Amino acid sequence: MQKNIIEVCFTPSDYDYFKGRFEIVVVIDVLRATSAICSAIHNGVNSVIPVSTIEEAKEYQDKGYLVGAERQGEIVEGFDFGNSPYSYMKPELVGKDVVLSTTNGTRAINIAKEAPIVVIGALTNIDFLCEWLIKQEKNVLCLCSGWKDKFNLEDTICGGAIADILIKSGKFTSDEDTSVGAKYLFQGAKDNYFGFLKSSSHRRRLKRLNLNEDIKFCLTPNQMDVIPILRNGRIEKLEF
Amino acid sequence: MQKNIIEVCFTPSDYDYFKGRFEIVVVIDVLRATSAICSAIHNGVNSVIPVSTIEEAKEYQDKGYLVGAERQGEIVEGFDFGNSPYSYMKPELVGKDVVLSTTNGTRAINIAKEAPIVVIGALTNIDFLCEWLIKQEKNVLCLCSGWKDKFNLEDTICGGAIADILIKSGKFTSDEDTSVGAKYLFQGAKDNYFGFLKSSSHRRRLKRLNLNEDIKFCLTPNQMDVIPILRNGRIEKLEF
Repeated sequence: MQKNIIEVCFTPSDYDYFKGRFEIVVVIDVLRATSAICSAIHNGVNSVIPVSTIEEAKEYQDKGYLVGAERQGEIVEGFDFGNSPYSYMKPELVGKDVVLSTTNGTRAINIAKEAPIVVIGALTNIDFLCEWLIKQEKNVLCLCSGWKDKFNLEDTICGGAIADILIKSGKFTSDEDTSVGAKYLFQGAKDNYFGFLKSSSHRRRLKRLNLNEDIKFCLTPNQMDVIPILRNGRIEKLEF
Repeated sequence: MQKNIIEVCFTPSDYDYFKGRFEIVVVIDVLRATSAICSAIHNGVNSVIPVSTIEEAKEYQDKGYLVGAERQGEIVEGFDFGNSPYSYMKPELVGKDVVLSTTNGTRAINIAKEAPIVVIGALTNIDFLCEWLIKQEKNVLCLCSGWKDKFNLEDTICGGAIADILIKSGKFTSDEDTSVGAKYLFQGAKDNYFGFLKSSSHRRRLKRLNLNEDIKFCLTPNQMDVIPILRNGRIEKLEF
């Protein structure tokens, strides 16, 4: 049996090289956009609409949508919330369509949107997501959101974890050094994500903003059996 | 005392982000350009002239220079040698000026050439180079040559090793996730570079070309106390 391919792309700016060769793209922004989206969909939010710019976010706000907007780790003034996963667990959001614009994550989602299938990955849903990915028998790309088109550790580790799980299933293989490097970084990190990431630049950035609770949440694997999937510009729950 | 900065840049295409902030750029192409340059300078070659294109390499050949040219791991037809370090250890090269054009390494050197100081790094000269870097009290960037503007493992590990040594001296610090990731990858690799890199794409590429001896040579640290330095477009031995 021919194996499927799993690769890890470090940043949206590297996506062109990988583009077109993968039926499934998993978008990853561990701190915090994709962790927040998993929380939202798990909490019963009807859909998350990812938008790239603050202008688009404002247009939705004017139409009466609840809108989350984050830049540089902080809630953008005038919006309802940022990208803290806790913001999306509130009962008043159940059944609602929520708009989200973040520094990196929603940009990565929009870059990947032409792929046949786009799903949302985070540490919080990783095992459930991987179990599903293995069953699809398709080529999978993990697209890390990075930080402003630069490599970041936490997304790479999550991508490496997905690659590791898929390869261990015996049904996937990888070829790129980015994937090998991501897998090695995951193997070094897996026993203590929090310790491993203590020197990551974005963790330090969020710590300065007193967001340690968010970080702990986002780095705790397998809290929710949910796969958010992009359909017609909206991220919804994949139903089985 | 304020610490100096040491960072690792994964590929020439990421260089713009780092550019201008570092007095010293260490160009790294472990397999095999910078390992070959170290061998050449250590062997007594007077200078290595790095050129980016095959056309430039041909012009030098027409003028009577000895010219090495490599693309995709192989010697380009019509040239004297490629970038095997062993090619540069021959007695007939002592005292000569040699021209070199390679897929990635010489391109990275030319991209970095506006930096105040450009030196050549490899595993083969790493401790000697680091001892010198620590004494300079300047900010240092490791510029990995990568593979066609993509991340590669071996250069990243070498960059991570340099970052690790400099930071352990107590005189350097780093801030970027690329540097943290490179350091982690080095720490995982350091006890067995050959084993760690067995799945790297370029190692596989060279193995197919029967270049295992070259790989072993390039992955054996500290074989030569030499620092090749770029001056007026030529790489020469740094004399103390």
